Amino acid sequence: MKSGLSFLVAARRCEIEELEQLARTSDLVGVIGRLVHALQRERGLSNVFIASRGLRFADQRGQQITATRQVEQEVRAGFDELATDSRRAGSSARLFSRIAWVLPGLDALPELRRRVGALELSPAQATAAVVKLIAGLLAVVFEAADGATDPEISRLLVAMFNFMQGKEFAGQERAFGAAAFSLGRTDDASRHQWLHLIESQERCFQVFTDFSTPPLLALWQHNQSDATLAELERLRRIGALPVGQTLDPALSQPWFDCCTRRIDAMKTVEEHLAAELRAGCGRKTGQARDELLKYQQILDTLEQQSDGAVAASDDLFFDEAVSGDAPDAPYGRHLERSVLEMVQQQSRRLQAMSEELETVRASLNERKVVERAKGLLMAHRRMTEEEAHKMLRQTAMNQNRRLIDVAESVLAMADYLAVDAPR
Amino acid sequence: MKSGLSFLVAARRCEIEELEQLARTSDLVGVIGRLVHALQRERGLSNVFIASRGLRFADQRGQQITATRQVEQEVRAGFDELATDSRRAGSSARLFSRIAWVLPGLDALPELRRRVGALELSPAQATAAVVKLIAGLLAVVFEAADGATDPEISRLLVAMFNFMQGKEFAGQERAFGAAAFSLGRTDDASRHQWLHLIESQERCFQVFTDFSTPPLLALWQHNQSDATLAELERLRRIGALPVGQTLDPALSQPWFDCCTRRIDAMKTVEEHLAAELRAGCGRKTGQARDELLKYQQILDTLEQQSDGAVAASDDLFFDEAVSGDAPDAPYGRHLERSVLEMVQQQSRRLQAMSEELETVRASLNERKVVERAKGLLMAHRRMTEEEAHKMLRQTAMNQNRRLIDVAESVLAMADYLAVDAPR
Repeated sequence: MKSGLSFLVAARRCEIEELEQLARTSDLVGVIGRLVHALQRERGLSNVFIASRGLRFADQRGQQITATRQVEQEVRAGFDELATDSRRAGSSARLFSRIAWVLPGLDALPELRRRVGALELSPAQATAAVVKLIAGLLAVVFEAADGATDPEISRLLVAMFNFMQGKEFAGQERAFGAAAFSLGRTDDASRHQWLHLIESQERCFQVFTDFSTPPLLALWQHNQSDATLAELERLRRIGALPVGQTLDPALSQPWFDCCTRRIDAMKTVEEHLAAELRAGCGRKTGQARDELLKYQQILDTLEQQSDGAVAASDDLFFDEAVSGDAPDAPYGRHLERSVLEMVQQQSRRLQAMSEELETVRASLNERKVVERAKGLLMAHRRMTEEEAHKMLRQTAMNQNRRLIDVAESVLAMADYLAVDAPR
Repeated sequence: MKSGLSFLVAARRCEIEELEQLARTSDLVGVIGRLVHALQRERGLSNVFIASRGLRFADQRGQQITATRQVEQEVRAGFDELATDSRRAGSSARLFSRIAWVLPGLDALPELRRRVGALELSPAQATAAVVKLIAGLLAVVFEAADGATDPEISRLLVAMFNFMQGKEFAGQERAFGAAAFSLGRTDDASRHQWLHLIESQERCFQVFTDFSTPPLLALWQHNQSDATLAELERLRRIGALPVGQTLDPALSQPWFDCCTRRIDAMKTVEEHLAAELRAGCGRKTGQARDELLKYQQILDTLEQQSDGAVAASDDLFFDEAVSGDAPDAPYGRHLERSVLEMVQQQSRRLQAMSEELETVRASLNERKVVERAKGLLMAHRRMTEEEAHKMLRQTAMNQNRRLIDVAESVLAMADYLAVDAPR
């Protein structure tokens, strides 16, 4: 029969396993970040390529495709590793489900590239396809953040998800702007969408700021070159503000370069974030291992003293209840009291961790509410996910409200939607 | 490289593992219920034994101790099994930590029994000791309910926890009343505590009612014999209502018998609840296995058709994005679309499950708030857990408020407490 202390050890072992699992997931998140970055570059190049009817960026696009393919192989290998990790459990079903969604997208990339190469798609269609794939990849990162069991790592994953999502909006803005400049014309709807992309990325970077660490924040401030930002805002003013119906196609290159400088700077921050995530997992695992060792030593001492028998705390457990006029415990009262205190300490620590985790996860709620609203529209209005998202976004733009507020209104009106539902 | 469908399979496998783990935990909860029941009987007998200075229930107490010991061995074996279950993760650290807390209490039982046998403890002291141990066992059940990953099973575990907790309050009432009748006297404080035990159990049975199933509710209604309830309320009126300072010691036996009839009837409901829990886990696991088989068959078909290659969905993933003028997919568009639909369906189902789970878990919040308030008092007032709990309960009784409301007030006043904290 096992003693209380051995369950203290078992609890620590569970924590260590969870941290190791979290470390593997965090590594994968880092690789996904690199794939998203590669897809973003490829998308930007493809857009200019299509908009220029194949005249520009043909070579760069080819090189980028090769680079993207390489990272894609790394991500696929990472996915495979997760699936063969027999000790996974917990939130893995949701994580795997997200991966199951993303893989057909990766499988479909060659055909998408062929059609872009053959100029069969418009810049908007090509962008929409890659946006969908990247959204799938970000959903994997989201699930990793939501399933994390350590609050400190969870905070970093939330920061990472929001940074990646913000960077993706910046990437969408680059592609969107590049296409708009290349086409040489714009309209109200296009400008509206452009402004929406700006707002969305700023909100993401705000959450990143809230959940980030001081060194990362310093790097983030430092890496945003003032010159690049000034150029970006000047070009945004030309492209996204209602000053005319025509755009100068010659601005497409400086726009793309300026956005690329900014996004490449983001990439550096993202890499540091990934490194901090790795270091955090390592540090936490180390701490947990040290604690485990300490427990193990006490367990060994107790077992020696009691000659292999169960390390009992005898009546000490009931001390408070029976107000301690009990005889001394056989193997040293001090050691046994320290075991009971360790149990209580661990229990309090786990409790505090789970409360902090809840607080961190609350920040992911915004996205969950939007997903729920989309699900509701899909079910009751027979919409596809894209259509539902478009409808929510369109409503938000039209009513000048935040997406989350529109989503909450939709959920509040669930009963009315149900009445409309086809039977 | 694995296909999207194989991750759909992996996600299902995770779910099945979680359900199997949940089934083992649920079995343990059933055995814990039996141990709590045995401890409750032993406590009731011990109280009369002490109060009568060893004249009454000596034999029954001896027999009950033997019976309790047998179930204790089963519970210990169940704990050991959990610890050696290598595939556990998720919330197991918290579960193990609770077990680590309870085991020293089980270890200390022989010494407690010796002191009861030697009449070294008052009925109140003996009761307090067993109350503490049972609270530890209930905390294990609570953690099992909080860590459950399936909403249907989680509902049953919440019902189970609250039923067990309500039954424990009923058991405390039995012991408390038996001691009061045996002593032949009562006072305001004692009556107050008695009424508090009645209210606490009624609140627990209300949550049980909210989370239970119709057959269990019917059994619960049916099992509460009107005659027993009438007798119970009559004796409660005599013992717990302010009609005098003396009690008839002869009522101790009918009180004990009446409470025992009621608690034994509760035991039947609890056993049915445990059986429903087992059946629920079995049914859910069966469903998940059927689904897994279905996925596996489609996966095999796809792999045969594509001659062992990756079951790709090609451009179908991007259909909506590029508005479908793509050529037909090689291995039957219908089958591939169904795979993508399955992925979306599973994703929606997992999402809905996690939302429902959140709702069920919210019902456990009351207890968590009380625990948090206790922790705050322990940290800032240097109290033991018992002292903190007593202070909260006393405040609730004095102010005629619910424990949860007092706990929330304490948490709201956290800042004031912090100022008082010794440095």
